Amino acid sequence: MSTATQSQACTALKFTIRPVSDALTAALQDKIDNKTKPIGSLGQLEKLALKIGRIQNTLSPRLNCPQVIIFAGDHGAAKAGISAYPQDVSWQMLENYLRGGAGANVFSRLNGLKMVVVDAGVAHDFGEREGLINAKISPTGTRNYLEEAAMTREQCEEALRRGAGFVRAAVAEGCNVIGLGEKGIGNTGSASLITHFLTGTPIAECVGRGTGLDDAGLAAKRRLMQQALDRAQLPADADVMTVLTEFGGFEIVMMVGAYLAAAEAGITILADGVIATSALLAAVRLEPHVLDYVIFCHKSAEAGHVVQLRALDADPILDIGMRLGEGTGVMVAYPMLEAAMAFMNEMASFESAGVSKKVR
Amino acid sequence: MSTATQSQACTALKFTIRPVSDALTAALQDKIDNKTKPIGSLGQLEKLALKIGRIQNTLSPRLNCPQVIIFAGDHGAAKAGISAYPQDVSWQMLENYLRGGAGANVFSRLNGLKMVVVDAGVAHDFGEREGLINAKISPTGTRNYLEEAAMTREQCEEALRRGAGFVRAAVAEGCNVIGLGEKGIGNTGSASLITHFLTGTPIAECVGRGTGLDDAGLAAKRRLMQQALDRAQLPADADVMTVLTEFGGFEIVMMVGAYLAAAEAGITILADGVIATSALLAAVRLEPHVLDYVIFCHKSAEAGHVVQLRALDADPILDIGMRLGEGTGVMVAYPMLEAAMAFMNEMASFESAGVSKKVR
Repeated sequence: MSTATQSQACTALKFTIRPVSDALTAALQDKIDNKTKPIGSLGQLEKLALKIGRIQNTLSPRLNCPQVIIFAGDHGAAKAGISAYPQDVSWQMLENYLRGGAGANVFSRLNGLKMVVVDAGVAHDFGEREGLINAKISPTGTRNYLEEAAMTREQCEEALRRGAGFVRAAVAEGCNVIGLGEKGIGNTGSASLITHFLTGTPIAECVGRGTGLDDAGLAAKRRLMQQALDRAQLPADADVMTVLTEFGGFEIVMMVGAYLAAAEAGITILADGVIATSALLAAVRLEPHVLDYVIFCHKSAEAGHVVQLRALDADPILDIGMRLGEGTGVMVAYPMLEAAMAFMNEMASFESAGVSKKVR
Repeated sequence: MSTATQSQACTALKFTIRPVSDALTAALQDKIDNKTKPIGSLGQLEKLALKIGRIQNTLSPRLNCPQVIIFAGDHGAAKAGISAYPQDVSWQMLENYLRGGAGANVFSRLNGLKMVVVDAGVAHDFGEREGLINAKISPTGTRNYLEEAAMTREQCEEALRRGAGFVRAAVAEGCNVIGLGEKGIGNTGSASLITHFLTGTPIAECVGRGTGLDDAGLAAKRRLMQQALDRAQLPADADVMTVLTEFGGFEIVMMVGAYLAAAEAGITILADGVIATSALLAAVRLEPHVLDYVIFCHKSAEAGHVVQLRALDADPILDIGMRLGEGTGVMVAYPMLEAAMAFMNEMASFESAGVSKKVR
């Protein structure tokens, strides 16, 4: 890497993230409390309205051009037996996206979110394809973290930078609310290792069945995760970029950059399941105020998610046992955000409707 | 009441409710499991697709002309201090509905549900009004159940009949999925008394803060509920119609009839919060197979709802602390049902998408 490139990398890796202002908090709460309903009776919808109002610093928050970017990447460790599905499923599912048949297509169409698909490093040559952005960091996916670091530091920084770029492009299109999804056979393994380091939780608690391992498969995956830790020999307080370089997927690192860029742009961030949240943990560790911009869309049924949610003190909207990935948790939960905006902007106040207020 | 009317009443009060068939259960599960996703990874959405498929007895279930009927009624006991709001709020909120400014208006517009408003017995003369169906059982609401039965047996039967009629009209319009909502200051009190009798749960556990009583108000409400029980002196196994006659609201009894008619028509029923579910308990007690048709939309923050959900072995979709009533829980949860239908009808299978299946 030349000196010029390094300097460029360092510049691009700086994100300026402002804390969300409290200037309108009281006025927002007052507006919410004066809607024609018992105080607090819209539960989490009221918290969403307050949070988005604060992020946008307005009493009339709006969601514009919602978008989910799906980052896809392959993992060298996938062939060692950490997934219930063969690695080819990564590229086959991208083909499924391009034909419009995956869960992510269905739910993004249904709920009006734009879906963008980014190839961060799938081990397959798609050629030039309408609807697929080629941003491969490597044509063969990451290296096998059971044997060596998953990527180089340069690759990690480049992935971070590219991930940020996709969010900046979305913001330039008018998007002010963004979710990130992913596809990559084996990537719950990466997510577990990252979660272990960034939350200090024993690795066994961070490991789940992923796409559906049986008990023997889960036990084997736990052993492989331990093997990866033994190989890497990182200190418990290893810095975020080192952890990502050792265990990351290219799609995960792009998501880290994307979260940082979204927070820098001051837009609302929608968090999905265990892989997306491993990237979010990394972004929050790098820049704690990223969290000011995040709405947790659902609680995944995948084991490590509850560890992450606890570490981030998160209270997700949905708890319906989803664990599909692809940003589907964000897409399915999105109408809850629309409901929050709708009551905030359209519902009458006690005064405007001439309704009597509470007497006792 | 004349003999002719009585005989008509008895006829109209019979509902023929068929259990939902298991004929397609295996085929539905097979279709769900072959979608391009890990088995079970859409969690409750998969259960919803299975349930609605069974109700409609088809592998390609659809939701047509979704509707929420809001039944409104006043309660004689409301003036005794069982609510945080004055009784006038019932009619004032109906005016709010007619102007389109209530939560129910906002959420039904947002999610594409038709909203029908029925005056079951609000203590207010609205005159002829576009958008309001006058089905008053009494122009002054129910009598005060602290002193006497809330209604006569004839009124109770008439309310049941009228409630059923509104659902039959919806079905005639092509509706195959219906939710019921309510408005009526003081009606959480009725719901608590009904829940106490129909679940055998101590009254104190069935009583909540309603629209927002403080601790002293809640204690007073509990005392008033006990006073109502002491006055009525019903046996613990009192029949459903007697319980409804003693403590019901006209809006609650209309909902009972509406649930029965919906199950008789074989359409999907969407259950809302604590008042709607008190009526559902009554309908299920009268005809247990009503439950085959019910989807529980949310877990209300109002205390008695958890008692009801336990009694009905229910696992609601949303748990976001809502307790507004008006069918808003149904309306806000409705996109989850649409998501279930969308994946069932639009998502590719492993075969159709050429995606490899699980290997371990």
